[in-house]
Amino acid sequence: MIRLFSTMTKKAKAQEFLLKTPKGTKDWADKDMIIRESIFGKLSTIFKKHGGVTIDTPVFELREILTGKYGEDSKLIYNLEDQGGELTSLRYDLTVPFARFVACNNLSSIKRYHIAKVYRRDQPAMTKGRMREFYQCDFDIAGTYDLMVPDSEILNILCEGLNELNIKDYKVKLNHRKILDGIFEACGVPEEDIRKVSSAIDKLDKSPWEAVKKEILEKGQSEEIADKIWTFVQHSGSIREVIEILKKSGIDNATAQQGIQEMEVLADYVEAFGIQDNLRFDLSLARGLDYYTGLIYEAVTAASAPPKNASELKKAKGEDEDASAYVGVGSIAAGGRYDNLVGMFSNNKSIPCVGISFGVERLFSIIKQRTDLSKLNSQHTDVYVMAFGGGEGWNGFLKERMHVTNQLWKAGINAEFLYKAKANTRKQFDGAEKSGAKLAVILGKEEYPEGKIRVKKLGQGEENEGDVIAIDEMVSFVKSQLQVDSITKAIGNL
Amino acid sequence: MIRLFSTMTKKAKAQEFLLKTPKGTKDWADKDMIIRESIFGKLSTIFKKHGGVTIDTPVFELREILTGKYGEDSKLIYNLEDQGGELTSLRYDLTVPFARFVACNNLSSIKRYHIAKVYRRDQPAMTKGRMREFYQCDFDIAGTYDLMVPDSEILNILCEGLNELNIKDYKVKLNHRKILDGIFEACGVPEEDIRKVSSAIDKLDKSPWEAVKKEILEKGQSEEIADKIWTFVQHSGSIREVIEILKKSGIDNATAQQGIQEMEVLADYVEAFGIQDNLRFDLSLARGLDYYTGLIYEAVTAASAPPKNASELKKAKGEDEDASAYVGVGSIAAGGRYDNLVGMFSNNKSIPCVGISFGVERLFSIIKQRTDLSKLNSQHTDVYVMAFGGGEGWNGFLKERMHVTNQLWKAGINAEFLYKAKANTRKQFDGAEKSGAKLAVILGKEEYPEGKIRVKKLGQGEENEGDVIAIDEMVSFVKSQLQVDSITKAIGNL
Repeated sequence: MIRLFSTMTKKAKAQEFLLKTPKGTKDWADKDMIIRESIFGKLSTIFKKHGGVTIDTPVFELREILTGKYGEDSKLIYNLEDQGGELTSLRYDLTVPFARFVACNNLSSIKRYHIAKVYRRDQPAMTKGRMREFYQCDFDIAGTYDLMVPDSEILNILCEGLNELNIKDYKVKLNHRKILDGIFEACGVPEEDIRKVSSAIDKLDKSPWEAVKKEILEKGQSEEIADKIWTFVQHSGSIREVIEILKKSGIDNATAQQGIQEMEVLADYVEAFGIQDNLRFDLSLARGLDYYTGLIYEAVTAASAPPKNASELKKAKGEDEDASAYVGVGSIAAGGRYDNLVGMFSNNKSIPCVGISFGVERLFSIIKQRTDLSKLNSQHTDVYVMAFGGGEGWNGFLKERMHVTNQLWKAGINAEFLYKAKANTRKQFDGAEKSGAKLAVILGKEEYPEGKIRVKKLGQGEENEGDVIAIDEMVSFVKSQLQVDSITKAIGNL
Repeated sequence: MIRLFSTMTKKAKAQEFLLKTPKGTKDWADKDMIIRESIFGKLSTIFKKHGGVTIDTPVFELREILTGKYGEDSKLIYNLEDQGGELTSLRYDLTVPFARFVACNNLSSIKRYHIAKVYRRDQPAMTKGRMREFYQCDFDIAGTYDLMVPDSEILNILCEGLNELNIKDYKVKLNHRKILDGIFEACGVPEEDIRKVSSAIDKLDKSPWEAVKKEILEKGQSEEIADKIWTFVQHSGSIREVIEILKKSGIDNATAQQGIQEMEVLADYVEAFGIQDNLRFDLSLARGLDYYTGLIYEAVTAASAPPKNASELKKAKGEDEDASAYVGVGSIAAGGRYDNLVGMFSNNKSIPCVGISFGVERLFSIIKQRTDLSKLNSQHTDVYVMAFGGGEGWNGFLKERMHVTNQLWKAGINAEFLYKAKANTRKQFDGAEKSGAKLAVILGKEEYPEGKIRVKKLGQGEENEGDVIAIDEMVSFVKSQLQVDSITKAIGNL
């Protein structure tokens, strides 16, 4: 290494490349890290409360595991180089690895949560929280259960998570793949075109009907079919309201009927959980992923990405007040039922699954915006150990500071000292301030050899001289002086 | 998805590939996950105690960042496929990304910890805990400080970590790159061959001198040079003992002298921390990585991989008892000083660093072996909500169970119920047992409509009928009945 730097040529080389993280990725540090860890903490507490266990799968999977699961978005999968051996790709979500895990371990049921990074070679939009490497917090229930029971608990967890994170004004948009596919069938879309048309409809939250209609026509459907679809997908409201609309529409398609029945059951259960007011049945919700088979949902909030300009805002505040406030907004959590994914990995049996994925980066942006960052300190130091002295023969008490700090560490107390043999008072106080320590333990040139030590509360001005106590009593005295960790408090208030 | 399965051809296709994780990777779940999370928890508590803050860097870096940092092992780096855009590779360790982070953010000092996965295309040896994807727990101190002060704190953290994890009989082998390089110089190894010879010497913990000597000769050194090297590298003992040996050897090489002086300073500090008995100065320790510039160390324990058979064991128990017990054993933690790595990313300034990396998989194997797995439950459920009834008009109280469970959730209590509309008693008790719940909250067909509920301790036999209480009092009653979480206890005892 040193030799690498002994010539100017090599030295120059170090600057030839850009010093940065890869496109669409970022480092997390400092106060951002505190906020993110608090999000993880709150969500995993909820996941555990609902009986969830956690698992961890490899960051890459055999490429074949991922193939054919993500529809049009499959092109965004990151492949590892073929360096001999197996072909592998970075995971695109946590759902497919979960299904693979359930199949691998031949499980018949599990409630699992998984907090980990996923990878998509998308066009990054950092300000909107769209990254190429990003975290997902997933909770999924696998197992054969009564209709809509786990589904309603998942919706409950979704609402609980957003409430706990203090996200205001969110709405959970719901739809059902069987209803949507039934509508497409009833409108005359051939079976093989259903997913394509569905992915066009999914864009209705960002684009006007005219643009979406154009895409449907481009995808080979007639104008008549497109217009028929529009008579359905413009409807939204409470679950019971939209069920009424669908019934009145006279749609007698068997697939749609089955979906409507399921939604009726769901309406009962979400009332038992008291979450019906957070939900909105929206027939235009389609979700891009191929693997959904039943209920699908997506939580949106106006706060996550407000319309860019006044005219857009005005337009957004149009006829349908409820829905419009969330137009053009990325989802902050999403999921659905996928009953056939595990079966794709295991022909013997199909394990029905339903789950929710929280988008951490988007939640993070909202929470950071409203957090008082000055109250956060990423260091957890409670005590700073110093030595005061000077004059002839003063050696700085470095070994003594090490010894005293070590006593604090052994007692489980978070402590630091300055890494200098002879440390002046100013630098030690600077170090203490930077560390966020609440107490100083001071070794005085005269006091310490007499078996005494000074304990001083920090941030209380010069006049406070602190307490002089026997070294033997230091640990218990320091413990009594330390208040509840202020960082814990700050995190609690996020 | 459904269509994929509608033909036999497609169905057969699902079985064509192996259902597994990629070579050298594994899923973590269940009790293993509890043990691993407890290791992470204990280590991060220690890291925070020493003033550490945590960061998170992307799992892949620009390929150029990793190039030229790992010596012979660079061939083990995983590359991502060139899909257009930047060339990237999975991180090989957490140290180079840390140095890149320090340079990127223009930091002059930081104590950081980082717990994350790293990737090496090595030949996996799962039983020994050598994987292609594995976790590292790193703590590093960056900044310009007095000689050996942060280094000794890092050694203290290393010992504290292993003690806290209750690892018995470990030894921390120490050496100094300046001493090692000075020895090679003094023995006549040309400067350009030093790293090559060094990496041969590093194999002395696994191979006999004859094999290592052969490699040194193959690497172009004379027999005389090799034999001279042997007169040095066979020595080990306490720091002060080996310093004496080196001084008596009359080595007057300037590089070695500087290293010896630093080791003398270190000897004082490790005594101040009281950890000298865990350390062993071993002149054969070389460490493979290119970037080390000063003190290097590696913790080994006989428990991590005992010799395979009796004859090996006998051989290992040879002349040098202390060292022999650890022969052939992979390291459980390792690190060193690397003063030039940050400078490779930033020509303006070089930030000296020193750090330690705990090898989680190897620690995990040791800890799992001695853990009573029957005491661990990966679910955190405290209460199972049931309904008892039957006969005509009995609807199973599903919505009522949902409502009651929701009240518990809202009060922060971990609770579950069976996802069946009409659930029989046996199945509900089975569900409760599987969940590990301590209490059952029972909705009786007659009691519940009267505003009453039954709370029963689980695992106490049929005769225990539980307490009948008013629904309004349920939350406070349940809270008072719940003891300290048994899982927390079990983890505490790992």
